[in-house]
Amino acid sequence: MENPRFEPQDPAFAQRVQDSFVRQGAMATIGATLSAVTAGEVEIVLPWAQALTQQHGFLHAGMVATALDSACGYAAFSLMPADAAVLTIEYKINMLAPAKGQHFRMVGQVVKPGRTITVVEGRAYANDSGQEKLIATMGCTVMAVFDRAGVHH
Amino acid sequence: MENPRFEPQDPAFAQRVQDSFVRQGAMATIGATLSAVTAGEVEIVLPWAQALTQQHGFLHAGMVATALDSACGYAAFSLMPADAAVLTIEYKINMLAPAKGQHFRMVGQVVKPGRTITVVEGRAYANDSGQEKLIATMGCTVMAVFDRAGVHH
Amino acid sequence: MENPRFEPQDPAFAQRVQDSFVRQGAMATIGATLSAVTAGEVEIVLPWAQALTQQHGFLHAGMVATALDSACGYAAFSLMPADAAVLTIEYKINMLAPAKGQHFRMVGQVVKPGRTITVVEGRAYANDSGQEKLIATMGCTVMAVFDRAGVHH
Amino acid sequence: MENPRFEPQDPAFAQRVQDSFVRQGAMATIGATLSAVTAGEVEIVLPWAQALTQQHGFLHAGMVATALDSACGYAAFSLMPADAAVLTIEYKINMLAPAKGQHFRMVGQVVKPGRTITVVEGRAYANDSGQEKLIATMGCTVMAVFDRAGVHH
Repeated sequence: MENPRFEPQDPAFAQRVQDSFVRQGAMATIGATLSAVTAGEVEIVLPWAQALTQQHGFLHAGMVATALDSACGYAAFSLMPADAAVLTIEYKINMLAPAKGQHFRMVGQVVKPGRTITVVEGRAYANDSGQEKLIATMGCTVMAVFDRAGVHH
Repeated sequence: MENPRFEPQDPAFAQRVQDSFVRQGAMATIGATLSAVTAGEVEIVLPWAQALTQQHGFLHAGMVATALDSACGYAAFSLMPADAAVLTIEYKINMLAPAKGQHFRMVGQVVKPGRTITVVEGRAYANDSGQEKLIATMGCTVMAVFDRAGVHH
Repeated sequence: MENPRFEPQDPAFAQRVQDSFVRQGAMATIGATLSAVTAGEVEIVLPWAQALTQQHGFLHAGMVATALDSACGYAAFSLMPADAAVLTIEYKINMLAPAKGQHFRMVGQVVKPGRTITVVEGRAYANDSGQEKLIATMGCTVMAVFDRAGVHH
Repeated sequence: MENPRFEPQDPAFAQRVQDSFVRQGAMATIGATLSAVTAGEVEIVLPWAQALTQQHGFLHAGMVATALDSACGYAAFSLMPADAAVLTIEYKINMLAPAKGQHFRMVGQVVKPGRTITVVEGRAYANDSGQEKLIATMGCTVMAVFDRAGVHH
C-alpha cells in the first residue's frame, strides 16, 4: 500500500478503473495494460514495439505521454465518486532520457485530490536489459465532471 | 507564408523534416501525415480512427499530444542547422475540448529559435462535419543536439 | 478591440477587475499597474526596480511571472459572472530572454472561456531603450469559484 | 541528508549558492532567506507579509512561485561546475491550496542533473499555526550556461 492516506469514495473503484480502461481503443492499439490499481495510484505497463517508435528507434515520447497521462487520469479517477467522469485539463511532461528499453512502466500518483480538481504526478520508467531508469516526469490536472452529456466514465 | 520572420539555416530543411518524419513508426501507426512545412512552422494531419480512441469514442488526448508534439518538434527542427538532432525537453498541453471530429490538424509554430533551446507553440484543431474548432494548445521546449551518439535526426 | 469575440457576462467587469487589483498588496509592492482591461484581455505594466532584481541585475523572473500571472488571472476574471471568485490552478512559463529593460508589459488573453475552467495565454515584453522584445510566454488554467468561504473576488 | 545520490562537481557549492542568493534584490524585498543547501536540494523560507498578499490577504501565488523557482534554480546550481551560470528555461506550478499561513517553506530537489539541462521538482509548504500543508508543486527546467556575456552566477 503506497498511498494509505487516500480513502476511496467508491469501494468498487478498481473495477470502475478497469472497465473504463478496456473501453479505450488507444490503450489496446499501443499494447498498454493496467498492472496495478490502488486508491490514488495507478500503474500501466507498455512493451516496446516498432510501431511505436520515433526516428531513432526508441519509444516515441508521445506514446510515453499517452500511457503516463492515462496512469495519471486513472489515479485521479480511482478517488472520485462512482458517478463522476474524468477529464484531463492539462499536463506537463519533462523528458529526462530517451525511451530506450524493452518495456516501460508508468506510475500516476495523486498529490492532492479535490471535489472538482485533482492534481497528480506521474513517473515513467524504462526497463532496458533488466535495469530500470526514470525517463519522464509528469504534472497533471484532472477534473471530475458530473452529468455532462456525452462524457461518461 | 505565416512565418516570414525566420530564416532557415539549412535550405534543404523541408526535405530533412520529411525524411525524419517517415522514419517514425509511431506516425505511420496513428495515420499522421505531414501536410505543410515552412521555416518555423509545421502542420500534421490525422484522421479519426477507432484504434486511437479514449473511453468515450473521441480521439485519445495522447494521440492529439503525440501528433502536436511532433508538429512542434519539427517546427523547431526546420530552423536548425543540417547537422543538428532534435530532442523535446518538455511540453505542456491544455485540453480545451474533447477531440470530437473526423480529422484533426496540428500546427507547431516557433516562438523563439535559439542555438541550443527553441520554444514552440502548438494548436490542435478538430474538424467535425466541416467545422473547425480549437481543441488543444501546447507550449514546448526543444533542444538542438550535436554529435551525440545514438541520436541523429 | 483585440478580443471582439468574447461577450462579458458582467457589464461592470472592468471596474470589478480594477477593484480586485487594488486590493493586492503584492501588486503595489512590485509597482505594477493595470494599464488596460477589455473583455478577455488584461495588460499590466511594471517598471524596473533594484528591489526586484535577480543576481545579474535584470528583473527577477519571479516578478515577471507574478505580474504575468495576474494579467492572465484578470483576463479570465473579466469574463466571469459578477459573483465569481478567481483561482489560478496552474501556469507554465517559458523564459525566452533575460528581463532586461526599463519597463515591462504583461498581456493576458483568454483562449477558451468556460463555466468552470478558463484557459489563458500570456506574453511578457521588455522595453529596453524604446525597443520592445518578447521575453516570456505563459499558459495558464484558471477556475471560477462560487460561494467558497474566505475566497471572494 | 535527503539527496545522497548526487555528487557536487564544485566542493564549494554551498558558498557559491549563498553568494549568488544575496545578490538578488528580489529575495531581500520579499524577505526570503536560504535555510538549507545540500548537493541537489535547496530550501528557502519566507514569512507572510501584508506587502506580499493577493486580494484575499493570503500570500500572493507569484511570491510563492518566485521563492520556489529560486529554490529549484539553486538546487540545480548546486550541482553545476564552478564556472557555470544558471538560467531557468521554464517552470510549471500547480497551486494546490491558498497560501494561508504565517510562514512558508520552499524545497527544490533535483530529479535529473545534466551537463546542459537539469530537471528539478519543487514543493511549497504553508505553516499555519504550527501545521504544515503542501500548497504548491513545481516542475522546472534549468540550463547551465558558460561564457555568456552579462550572465554570471
